[in-house]
Amino acid sequence: MQIDTILMNNPVYDQSELYLRHISIDNVILGYHNKELKVLLQRPQGFNKWLLPGGYLKRTETLIDAAERIAKERTNLDNLFLKQFGAFGSPDRTKDSDFTPQKLSDISDIIIDDKHWMFDYFVSICFYTLTDFEKVQPNGDAYMEECVWWSVDNIPPMLYDHKDMINSALKTLRLHLYHYPIGYELLPKKFTLPEIHSLYETILNKELDIRNFGKKLIATGIIKKLDEKKKIGAHRSPYLYMFDDNQYKDALNKGIAIIL
Amino acid sequence: MQIDTILMNNPVYDQSELYLRHISIDNVILGYHNKELKVLLQRPQGFNKWLLPGGYLKRTETLIDAAERIAKERTNLDNLFLKQFGAFGSPDRTKDSDFTPQKLSDISDIIIDDKHWMFDYFVSICFYTLTDFEKVQPNGDAYMEECVWWSVDNIPPMLYDHKDMINSALKTLRLHLYHYPIGYELLPKKFTLPEIHSLYETILNKELDIRNFGKKLIATGIIKKLDEKKKIGAHRSPYLYMFDDNQYKDALNKGIAIIL
Repeated sequence: MQIDTILMNNPVYDQSELYLRHISIDNVILGYHNKELKVLLQRPQGFNKWLLPGGYLKRTETLIDAAERIAKERTNLDNLFLKQFGAFGSPDRTKDSDFTPQKLSDISDIIIDDKHWMFDYFVSICFYTLTDFEKVQPNGDAYMEECVWWSVDNIPPMLYDHKDMINSALKTLRLHLYHYPIGYELLPKKFTLPEIHSLYETILNKELDIRNFGKKLIATGIIKKLDEKKKIGAHRSPYLYMFDDNQYKDALNKGIAIIL
Repeated sequence: MQIDTILMNNPVYDQSELYLRHISIDNVILGYHNKELKVLLQRPQGFNKWLLPGGYLKRTETLIDAAERIAKERTNLDNLFLKQFGAFGSPDRTKDSDFTPQKLSDISDIIIDDKHWMFDYFVSICFYTLTDFEKVQPNGDAYMEECVWWSVDNIPPMLYDHKDMINSALKTLRLHLYHYPIGYELLPKKFTLPEIHSLYETILNKELDIRNFGKKLIATGIIKKLDEKKKIGAHRSPYLYMFDDNQYKDALNKGIAIIL
């Protein structure tokens, strides 16, 4: 399929009646499931490099509105908790030898030069979210040849500065892990200590002493031990835990210090 | 003095040849000195509300270039360590009943309507920095009636969403305090534990047990105790401390977890 000439020539984009010039939104959609951390990436038609799911800002939208709309387009989920982690802006950031006006002209049937609005200076406002990747069926669109999950340990070649964006999102997520609770949508309602421990280890990409981890997380009040065990086998029946809804919400709003 | 009609009508702004439309930069310049935390604010000619020192993004600049240029204009310092903490964008954010096109027309000699580029949708990319306010002589400019330090506990009425920006900067600074060392430019080369303790207490706006604080900060390796005391009086001669340059720089780059 060809790049859609309607979009490329659309006066709505060009005249900035619908969208603001110079501003884009990029989402780092991270997915966790059973000790694996992945990121949702898409590859434009006819190119070998990958992009984060992104888009433009409508005049009627707030930044978070736009991020949610764009995230929903790819995941079909509208309850994603998106957090801003940075704005990327430099005159050269949309110059990429693998994605030039010439190459875009070659595969489409219109002439695109470097004065085209798409190749103008864009500041990208970036958001990240963390979801259960098993719950998501990624949707591409007509411009994308692929839209799939990639392991964060094995990122393919990325266009522009999108690799930096992923690294920055991971850095922020890891920092936030010390101050905001996570896990509500990623773990079963009742979970074992090893399950939540694996979640933290996977995201932080480092080993944590499980005894200390458990003690410290319980000390924050966000999880509570139940008087109930999970039956795994004859000799393995670890205690179950649950999030304390009120403490969890409170910690999400106010922030806490979780010592890991 | 009148608002400068040259700026307001400048085709350079209007045609976006020099500056990008829709993008502004705002700096939350925080100043510490001897147990006081302040923020640098300016009041435009003819208005009663205050603004953060801000400006526009040149086509030739990165975001951080612009933030540094704008911060230097007000502080005359060019070694400020500016950190991005958020982008603010919503269709209504530059609508303020105290700063309307009508009011601006009234005090200038040109007609400004709500289609004017200044009142279009702006996304503001925000940075904060922390400096020693005793070292800064704030500079206003022709558009500003005042440019002065205000205590963070006593912020005057602010235009637009600038109060939210200050709160967000403080929240980020307080979170960063747990992960990045501070104090290098704010304390004497050799300082006492009570001096660095006051710095942290002032910024966090809460009391910290001084013994625990000292132990934990020393445990991070960023400060070291000297075999030297400060002579304050006959019965008061606290030990002096210094930052460990290498550990400090390393912690700034990699981030650490400081347990306070």
